[in-house]
Amino acid sequence: MKLGEFLACKKGMLFVVSGPSGTGKGTICKNVIKNIGADISVSMTTRKPRSGEKNGKEYFFVTEEEFVKTIKDDGFLEHANVFGNRYGTPKANILDKLNSGKDVILEIDVQGAVQIKKAFPEAVLIFVLPPNMQELRRRIMTRGTETEQKINERLDKSLHEVKFINRYDYAVINADLHIAVSEVESILIAEHLKLRIDTNKIITKYEEEC
Amino acid sequence: MKLGEFLACKKGMLFVVSGPSGTGKGTICKNVIKNIGADISVSMTTRKPRSGEKNGKEYFFVTEEEFVKTIKDDGFLEHANVFGNRYGTPKANILDKLNSGKDVILEIDVQGAVQIKKAFPEAVLIFVLPPNMQELRRRIMTRGTETEQKINERLDKSLHEVKFINRYDYAVINADLHIAVSEVESILIAEHLKLRIDTNKIITKYEEEC
Repeated sequence: MKLGEFLACKKGMLFVVSGPSGTGKGTICKNVIKNIGADISVSMTTRKPRSGEKNGKEYFFVTEEEFVKTIKDDGFLEHANVFGNRYGTPKANILDKLNSGKDVILEIDVQGAVQIKKAFPEAVLIFVLPPNMQELRRRIMTRGTETEQKINERLDKSLHEVKFINRYDYAVINADLHIAVSEVESILIAEHLKLRIDTNKIITKYEEEC
Repeated sequence: MKLGEFLACKKGMLFVVSGPSGTGKGTICKNVIKNIGADISVSMTTRKPRSGEKNGKEYFFVTEEEFVKTIKDDGFLEHANVFGNRYGTPKANILDKLNSGKDVILEIDVQGAVQIKKAFPEAVLIFVLPPNMQELRRRIMTRGTETEQKINERLDKSLHEVKFINRYDYAVINADLHIAVSEVESILIAEHLKLRIDTNKIITKYEEEC
């Protein structure tokens, strides 16, 4: 039983999952969401939809003007410009879900995660690591048809991301997907059992029952 | 994969489980130990063994002199006098297990837990709560042939113990044994994934592999 339910505190929690591309963080998040019924946040972007992508599913696709207006309205938990395209995490969307008691999982890059933690200190940050860099190289290579130079750029970027790990609360190594998924689930469960709430409420409840 | 294994940090962790009698903390601990292979600590006591109790299993049964000598030798993580009998948690025993990489679970009362946290700040404290006081009363009543007065004394003691909950890191409500066991297991797993270790080690490892 979640301590929150017991104390009629129905708010969900925000979990941020980051890690170098190729670590499988996307697959981990999908499995966790399926298994324990958390919600994922859909980001807003100014980039054009790719074939098969649907508005509101992969992203909310908006114009530059709409994006800038959302910034001005303080509508993002975090936003960034990546290679000329803007990406942002809409605030209202997430807060609604949290208030309705749903946990929300955000799959987001390290800069975004740092911004989230500033805006929302209760957020729990999880970093997904590859078992080692050789394995990460292998995963990136088997993914597509990237050149040696591009692969090296990717690995450099990965290493840069790993340097943000001290900002994170937890680290999970994805050597075995099944174990990594259950570890992330354990983090979610344990965070709900943490005594960060007002413990006087607990004492009062038991006193009244006596 | 435990982060400890990955970083060749082979030390185990110390978990303390407390809660009013009748909450089922003993059963929870037994199940967790069986499922995930943690070790339990055997306490030292000056009380006489009951029928069926074996030295070194339920307790290490010692004389008053032996007990006092262990206190003088700073051999306890905590010790207490309960109704004229002494109980203590031997330090060497636990430190050996932790150093050999085993997690240790201590089932101990609230005063003991507070002493442990002082002596060993890395210890993780888990409080097991009954779903409510009516249920606790029912469990205590069905246990044996105690008088109404004794039951009330027990419930008063339970309530007194609940007042220590703010010293604890986590709270687990034992409404369903299966869920409570898996929640304690999640806490153990999550605590191993916490980034309390030197994150520079992680960065250096991946840098060297690049």
